[in-house]
Amino acid sequence: MSTPDALLRLREYLRSESYEATVVPTADPHSGEYLPSHYACRQWLSGFTGSAGTLVVTLDAAALWTDSRYFEQAEQQLADTGIELMRLKVAGTPSIPQWLQEHLGEDDTVVVDAELYPHSEYVALEEALPPGCLITEEGLFDAIWKGRPALEFHPLIALDETITGESVTSKCARLRERLDMGLPYVYLITACDEVAWLCNIRGTDIPYNPVPLCYAALTADRLTLFVDPAAVGEAVHRSLVSQQVDIQPYADFGQYLKRIPQNCVRIFSGNRICELHYQLALEHIPDRPVTPVVLADPEMGGVLARMKARKNATELAGFRKAFEEDAKAWVKLLDWIEAEIDKGELTEYTVAQQLIAFRQECPDYRGESFAPIVAFGPHGAMPHYHCASPEEAAPIRRGGFLLMDTGAHYTYGTTDTTRTIHTGEPTAEEKADYTAVLKGMLQLSAARFLPGTRGASLDMLARGEVFKRGHAYLHGTSHGIGHYLCVHEGPQSIRMEENPVPLELGNVLSNEPAIYWPGHYGIRLENVVAVVEDGQQNENTFHRFETLTQVPFDRKCIDFDQLGPECMAFLTALSANSPRN
Amino acid sequence: MSTPDALLRLREYLRSESYEATVVPTADPHSGEYLPSHYACRQWLSGFTGSAGTLVVTLDAAALWTDSRYFEQAEQQLADTGIELMRLKVAGTPSIPQWLQEHLGEDDTVVVDAELYPHSEYVALEEALPPGCLITEEGLFDAIWKGRPALEFHPLIALDETITGESVTSKCARLRERLDMGLPYVYLITACDEVAWLCNIRGTDIPYNPVPLCYAALTADRLTLFVDPAAVGEAVHRSLVSQQVDIQPYADFGQYLKRIPQNCVRIFSGNRICELHYQLALEHIPDRPVTPVVLADPEMGGVLARMKARKNATELAGFRKAFEEDAKAWVKLLDWIEAEIDKGELTEYTVAQQLIAFRQECPDYRGESFAPIVAFGPHGAMPHYHCASPEEAAPIRRGGFLLMDTGAHYTYGTTDTTRTIHTGEPTAEEKADYTAVLKGMLQLSAARFLPGTRGASLDMLARGEVFKRGHAYLHGTSHGIGHYLCVHEGPQSIRMEENPVPLELGNVLSNEPAIYWPGHYGIRLENVVAVVEDGQQNENTFHRFETLTQVPFDRKCIDFDQLGPECMAFLTALSANSPRN
Repeated sequence: MSTPDALLRLREYLRSESYEATVVPTADPHSGEYLPSHYACRQWLSGFTGSAGTLVVTLDAAALWTDSRYFEQAEQQLADTGIELMRLKVAGTPSIPQWLQEHLGEDDTVVVDAELYPHSEYVALEEALPPGCLITEEGLFDAIWKGRPALEFHPLIALDETITGESVTSKCARLRERLDMGLPYVYLITACDEVAWLCNIRGTDIPYNPVPLCYAALTADRLTLFVDPAAVGEAVHRSLVSQQVDIQPYADFGQYLKRIPQNCVRIFSGNRICELHYQLALEHIPDRPVTPVVLADPEMGGVLARMKARKNATELAGFRKAFEEDAKAWVKLLDWIEAEIDKGELTEYTVAQQLIAFRQECPDYRGESFAPIVAFGPHGAMPHYHCASPEEAAPIRRGGFLLMDTGAHYTYGTTDTTRTIHTGEPTAEEKADYTAVLKGMLQLSAARFLPGTRGASLDMLARGEVFKRGHAYLHGTSHGIGHYLCVHEGPQSIRMEENPVPLELGNVLSNEPAIYWPGHYGIRLENVVAVVEDGQQNENTFHRFETLTQVPFDRKCIDFDQLGPECMAFLTALSANSPRN
Repeated sequence: MSTPDALLRLREYLRSESYEATVVPTADPHSGEYLPSHYACRQWLSGFTGSAGTLVVTLDAAALWTDSRYFEQAEQQLADTGIELMRLKVAGTPSIPQWLQEHLGEDDTVVVDAELYPHSEYVALEEALPPGCLITEEGLFDAIWKGRPALEFHPLIALDETITGESVTSKCARLRERLDMGLPYVYLITACDEVAWLCNIRGTDIPYNPVPLCYAALTADRLTLFVDPAAVGEAVHRSLVSQQVDIQPYADFGQYLKRIPQNCVRIFSGNRICELHYQLALEHIPDRPVTPVVLADPEMGGVLARMKARKNATELAGFRKAFEEDAKAWVKLLDWIEAEIDKGELTEYTVAQQLIAFRQECPDYRGESFAPIVAFGPHGAMPHYHCASPEEAAPIRRGGFLLMDTGAHYTYGTTDTTRTIHTGEPTAEEKADYTAVLKGMLQLSAARFLPGTRGASLDMLARGEVFKRGHAYLHGTSHGIGHYLCVHEGPQSIRMEENPVPLELGNVLSNEPAIYWPGHYGIRLENVVAVVEDGQQNENTFHRFETLTQVPFDRKCIDFDQLGPECMAFLTALSANSPRN
């Protein structure tokens, strides 16, 4: 066993400060999907590179909790480190508080970096541990992580109203209408994509998420944007100032929080703000305030997040254009695969690269919206398979399912499309499975529903067809998609689990049922849909989905009898939009 | 205006006791669907006979809150009483606490009869009113309601294991396994149907619900049943005693609650126990107890209610037999309608009576499970239409939809069936509506799903077809059904709203989508289904529904093209079971 140097250095520090343990989650103060390397403390300490996991270190033990996607990878990467692997959702796996209580003495102290903990998770951990056991330290890793990567800031991009459809001042006015309760308030916005939407800016500081590192604070008369001053070019600066945005340095957000007046109500989402910012924002609150000082975000899922998820007409038009451009690249790719496959040089890696190359032909392309998934044969049965390098890539031959799930950013919208094609002649069983996935996807796309409908009410329209084939996918059927923003966007979703946030007009969502047959193949088909009006009848107002995706399906895999007349008619109507026709 | 005498007498009493107001809900200490006349205080005071409503009376004002089903009826019945009608869920209608605060002074006292208030609702009212404002009085109406009907007790019926499939001792053992936490406890059971299930008894004290008035208390070593001693015949007494059931007088339940030992944990559902019993059970608790004294029911929806809803093999066999018997009566009725209709004497009333007559041919018939709904033409568009007398009944003629929703108790099961037939030749639009309802019903009946699935996940399979026709029914698609017990049984349901209680093996549920076209017609089709296993595939365990109902559909109303091949095949398989074939 060779304990990693980083871990030794951490323990030395804990000992010197009389701490007995620390918990290191995979998070940053923006609660984003991707972590800047500056915040990759867990990876630095453990060597485990998965996207999810929490490391717990005591003076003489260490363990890492992660989910089933990463069991194998974590086992390999943790071998010989002395860090025990804790398999989440497996019987017998202790919770972190349970494990800590077994490994700690009565008066021991657990320290965490308050910047890495969402406030609500911090509170949950605090409540699960003995009173007084948990404390925070700002910049815990600064002292011990030699060569810790600095945050990187790149130039800000300003979007004008022809792209966003709404000015910053109008967005602020709508927010203020919802936030105003007759008391002075400050609305704290810590998620980069929420700030980006509100300020009509984009950036390239985070992989795949086209956002800058930023914060914002909105009061009744002022919007303050915290960004790296060097990243604000002259034109962007002019544009922001003309829209009454105060620009302050990114590094000053903490100072701003400390200076919030006592009588000002702090409004934020407890699962978005980090514990450090929570503590700073409440530092100077008197013991018995006269008015409330903290209020939860006034809407389920967040008032700004809900507004952002209701795309306006300009944004929807941009999405349509983005999917049109993307379909051109996809159709070229499908033709290219057919032309190349018998040459024997196709691999999962070359296909992914080739789609990027075709996308780059569009001048408005701004990069992939997530790491492309190209999975041949049995690889397709792993929902999160990603082939990172040419060396690991499987060759693609005649006679199997090829699953491709990729998406792109265009200056006017973000795409996310999954197509599965068969490189040979599908068997009857393969056709039946493909058709079930397609039927589920189309049934959901064709749904008609009432305003206020929650995603859980619609999920079975897609998932039920997969059940009939004896399979079950355990991920959601649908996630929200940002407008030239994060490809995974809340708060709406369509999944088995209850999510109380209803679907709303303008929501843009994926629709991606799947069959995974381990050791054999995976079939996932994903269209993106927008919630639109569907008229009034008998005093009822209806909503439906408009399908944005225009990429054709692999028709030789469809059993049209099994598909049924209703789905067939719906598919025919969709196909009329495909660039192939 | 002529204030009802009862109201005058109530106000006199309030004045004499220095109370300023009272709230009279529609409830009894058993939280049942039907109220014994003894508890019909609201009706006695107001003259309003609807099944739902809350009356609030101050010294000089009175108002009654009820829902849209009863707006018209309440308006008529409250005319000239001085009682203002408050329309629930209509904009501008104040809540009861709001109204009370407008009508009361600062130190005024509101008194309620603690027997009429479920504990959780009492707490909600208490929290909405100023501290100290709300108090309870036991037997508030005894003093002022001259000639108040006494509770009526009828002989108990004991069911043996060939009907129930499980002995009382076995049920108690299973409950104790879930309740035991190493502390002395008492599980308080106040819902008559829960007591009836646990003790394998039935009764006739409540209309439509085949239960006796009863309570029960279960401890680690004792089951105490509170019933009227005169209602326990010799054989029933022997049977109960042989199963270790202690029998105590119904009237002694309050005394029992007061004598619960201090260190005994009281376990109950706060929305089932009434405030009186809650207070009595906690009367002798010390201020700072060493161990917890009150625990919520350990399962969502109630541990006993969940057990009761999971029907065993014997109960399911009984249900099958009940639906078989019931289908015989239905088929006779359908033939009889066809034979009688041209004679011009058919009415909604005579049809309801005739179905009862056909049911009575079965010696195991034990009465209707709810007031029959027979609704012709536009009457069918009222979901809760009930024709109470021959005089009110509409004649049934050729050329319209006839909606019949009725159910029966047999000694081995309870039924609930809705069929809509067309007495003439349906138009294309009528066929399209009928087929949509049928298709929704069949799609839900044919669902395949995972263990743990909640009703909200399945609802759209039925409801979505109705939306496609431009209609929307706002009631649930499905309620649970008791085994020779209440026809409306929780805690499972299938509805748009989230209900966290999952469907479980053995659940028996209705499946009743509908189209209501006000002024024209109503179409509702209801089958009853049981949750059963559907095998294992690819490491997944599946559940499906077994259809219990065998009554045929009106085939001339079905557009088979619209129905589609999948539903058609499912319908054909069902029809093989129908006694008509």
